[in-house]
Amino acid sequence: MLNLASATQTDWLQRVERDIDVVLIDHAHCEKKAAGTAMNLIFAYVEQTELVRALEPIVVEELEHFRMVLDLLDQRGIRFRRLKPGPYGRKLHDAIRKQEPARAVDRLLVAALIEARSCERFSLLRDHLSDRELARFYGDLFECEARHHTTYVRLAERFATADQIRVRLSELARYEAEVIARCDWPTRMHS
Amino acid sequence: MLNLASATQTDWLQRVERDIDVVLIDHAHCEKKAAGTAMNLIFAYVEQTELVRALEPIVVEELEHFRMVLDLLDQRGIRFRRLKPGPYGRKLHDAIRKQEPARAVDRLLVAALIEARSCERFSLLRDHLSDRELARFYGDLFECEARHHTTYVRLAERFATADQIRVRLSELARYEAEVIARCDWPTRMHS
Repeated sequence: MLNLASATQTDWLQRVERDIDVVLIDHAHCEKKAAGTAMNLIFAYVEQTELVRALEPIVVEELEHFRMVLDLLDQRGIRFRRLKPGPYGRKLHDAIRKQEPARAVDRLLVAALIEARSCERFSLLRDHLSDRELARFYGDLFECEARHHTTYVRLAERFATADQIRVRLSELARYEAEVIARCDWPTRMHS
Repeated sequence: MLNLASATQTDWLQRVERDIDVVLIDHAHCEKKAAGTAMNLIFAYVEQTELVRALEPIVVEELEHFRMVLDLLDQRGIRFRRLKPGPYGRKLHDAIRKQEPARAVDRLLVAALIEARSCERFSLLRDHLSDRELARFYGDLFECEARHHTTYVRLAERFATADQIRVRLSELARYEAEVIARCDWPTRMHS
């Protein structure tokens, strides 16, 4: 369902357990960036009102998650701060083709794959984190990310045929798997 | 309450009545841009979590208004499309100082003045539009803009003293009044 080309390696969870405060801060930034991505797509394709209507609730939900993670940080006495991002997002964006409509396809499919990877990671955190309160928190967020993944793939089909989308999604998923395998430092939600 | 340095001239309403479809399309873009402005401020000052928490509901409300205007366009059979923006927003942004924290003050106060002008315009539309359904629509939106104005001014006080904010708000309001007096074409929400 998630169209990912690899499963997360087991040592990621061990690294997260060691560095959980930083991962939570990074997670807040991820939610903010996810809201920003959906907003940027609204600006870029504003005349496609079906796309705008599908993305607007994604911005709202990602901002709500951002606030939830900020609350969690507050409750735990962790100061929210800027963090040097890992290379994951930048490298995925490098794969986006420059010419429309291929550019729209790639922007939507890259967003879909980031949501898919978040979803996979959240399910690991839900099932394995030793901190059970946090595990429940990730269990609650899990479903949204899966839904966003599906929405982004569906929206991509407005810019190309279903066959073209299937082929490109598979290419980008293989690339995403390579990128995340090489992003082993620093420890992040997508490392 | 709104800190504006001028009242809208009466011929604006006449121009709006003549060009109402274009003004509605422009209004949709205004709501989208207002959401984008609040989002950009979240990105720029993300470590200021009080500011982030105050801006997040503004993004959500502006996106909701954007959707409401798109619905209104649909109901009236008006195709939403890109529109060459008037010079208002760009000219106001030119007044923003480059160095922090003055830059933060100005970004917030310019946002506050744009909300104030929208609020003033919505009240005119509520009171005078010959189309009473539209008049009610603007009556419903009016209060939000006033509230956003107040929020932006309050947030600016995180970056300077209340006295400094009063002086700068008055300067920028005089500038805004000059700018809007000169933006008489094309007919827009802020022309």
